[in-house]
Amino acid sequence: MATPPIVIATGTTVGPFEGQSPLAKDFDLIAGDLTLGQASFELAERELMNSACLKAMQKAKRTEKDIDLFIAGDLLNQIITSGFNASLLGLPFFGVYGACSTSMAGLGLGAMLIDGGFIGTALTATSSHYSAAERQYRYPTEYGNQRRPYGQWTVTGAGAALLTTQGKGPRVTHVTVGKMTDFGVKDPLNMGAAMAPAAADTMLRHFADTKRMPEDYDLIVTGDLGEFGAEILRRWIKETGGLELGIRYKDCGAMIYDRVKYPQVASGGSGCGCSAVVVFGHLFREMERGRYRRILVIATGAMHSPTSVMQKQTIPCIAHAVAFEFP
Amino acid sequence: MATPPIVIATGTTVGPFEGQSPLAKDFDLIAGDLTLGQASFELAERELMNSACLKAMQKAKRTEKDIDLFIAGDLLNQIITSGFNASLLGLPFFGVYGACSTSMAGLGLGAMLIDGGFIGTALTATSSHYSAAERQYRYPTEYGNQRRPYGQWTVTGAGAALLTTQGKGPRVTHVTVGKMTDFGVKDPLNMGAAMAPAAADTMLRHFADTKRMPEDYDLIVTGDLGEFGAEILRRWIKETGGLELGIRYKDCGAMIYDRVKYPQVASGGSGCGCSAVVVFGHLFREMERGRYRRILVIATGAMHSPTSVMQKQTIPCIAHAVAFEFP
Repeated sequence: MATPPIVIATGTTVGPFEGQSPLAKDFDLIAGDLTLGQASFELAERELMNSACLKAMQKAKRTEKDIDLFIAGDLLNQIITSGFNASLLGLPFFGVYGACSTSMAGLGLGAMLIDGGFIGTALTATSSHYSAAERQYRYPTEYGNQRRPYGQWTVTGAGAALLTTQGKGPRVTHVTVGKMTDFGVKDPLNMGAAMAPAAADTMLRHFADTKRMPEDYDLIVTGDLGEFGAEILRRWIKETGGLELGIRYKDCGAMIYDRVKYPQVASGGSGCGCSAVVVFGHLFREMERGRYRRILVIATGAMHSPTSVMQKQTIPCIAHAVAFEFP
Repeated sequence: MATPPIVIATGTTVGPFEGQSPLAKDFDLIAGDLTLGQASFELAERELMNSACLKAMQKAKRTEKDIDLFIAGDLLNQIITSGFNASLLGLPFFGVYGACSTSMAGLGLGAMLIDGGFIGTALTATSSHYSAAERQYRYPTEYGNQRRPYGQWTVTGAGAALLTTQGKGPRVTHVTVGKMTDFGVKDPLNMGAAMAPAAADTMLRHFADTKRMPEDYDLIVTGDLGEFGAEILRRWIKETGGLELGIRYKDCGAMIYDRVKYPQVASGGSGCGCSAVVVFGHLFREMERGRYRRILVIATGAMHSPTSVMQKQTIPCIAHAVAFEFP
């Protein structure tokens, strides 16, 4: 960016299970139950995103009048969570879809439109809801299906970020747009393996484009590869890129749950809300607390649908990277 | 735009029924049947978009190496048509979703990212397929349902546009991003009525922002309101905006089919492909032929899903406007 836009405030809302997260103290709002008082899980997800958006606006002391554009996307068909929230906010709206990479797709686009001089302030948001996602993508939760060790648990959570040109907060210095990467994985229950090559491709292109190295970051974090996917990525970067990520590399999906206490989450968290709440909630506060000065977030997404899986298609994946710097 | 990006080439592919369109001579490719030789309608739609993209690249004598970014979206869940095409092209990719407004959402975003200096060349695309859309949104086509007079027929078609900084073609001078507009319509079979207020809102904001009037355009065209929706819009603009659109106003949905010969299309065409093939195929050629110098395209989209309709939610709509000028 010529003049890096600044994330002046964020809002994060999570479900009750995510309220047990080791990172929970960094989330703004924790819902008491999965319905948030709504008649359906889809309406509950709408409420999740709405509360995250309002929280970000409230913290920055901004109203809808101060915001030029809302950019959002989510996992539900036709991104209805985002659409209805755009309707509630009454702001000009671009809908985006990058599966679980949506958090950084939206934020990256917002940053470019600000730096390009088209808008002054953008609100970007994304969300996912365990129960709404399970019944759309997988099985009715009533079946009580167990996850395989490499399976992941959809995060109930929403994150919103308010970006503008003046203020205090993490600055968006670089955006590396993802390419679809397809290594032929067809198992929708093994997302980490499908998405790891996309994260690796974006990471290596980011280093090549920016002439940076892993050592230039205090933290490199992927969206939601989970523990297994993160291990694939780590080895891949070493074998194909010759780079050791070491302890500066983490994964939002592996971070969000206490996987010893709650083994049902298997390899970790997933869903659009996963990287959104971990980055906007936890990591940005860690930056404020002085723990990290410069971080690279690589949000990963699996771009399949239940229809494409039933038609025996592969699962092409994408990863969008955004570099943040706290001055 | 500070330096209006130029649409140097477009590609349009349509299905056999659209091959009977009064505008058919302006479409690049007409498929012989609805399957395009593929095993499913979803795979056929993928092929539609792919052929439109390749056609645009071929006409401009560009390959993937000359293109910095692919921006696309479509009606299928999780925009799989666009995702798989991004995978085929191997380009950096942003997925967008604006229902039938996607053609102008993608093109508008691409133009801003070029004018902002982030990329040099963008390929934008969108598509819809009658049979894939019907079975996802409405009823199995085997039922042989008849449309109500205000119903619309999903266009089988894909349009792609190649945008860059140098060359000959329509220039993108203005983008007006849509706001969600919700007047409480709940009938998913009456899209024109749901979308007309969104088109009106964007049109009036466009005139206010740019200090232009309808007379400044040789043609103002909405995405796919159909005959009934277009009539609602025309009256709305007169009653709330005090403006007479007159004969300079048309609607892509009302233009694409011969509604006398094929009454089954009812109020006209719809779907992401509708405005894409009419604008990229027909209208841009009319500009080249000297019929229009300056046009305003307002692509409209209904941001519902079958789930939101079944949960008795309203249908919020959006419309994105892009102004084109042929030098």
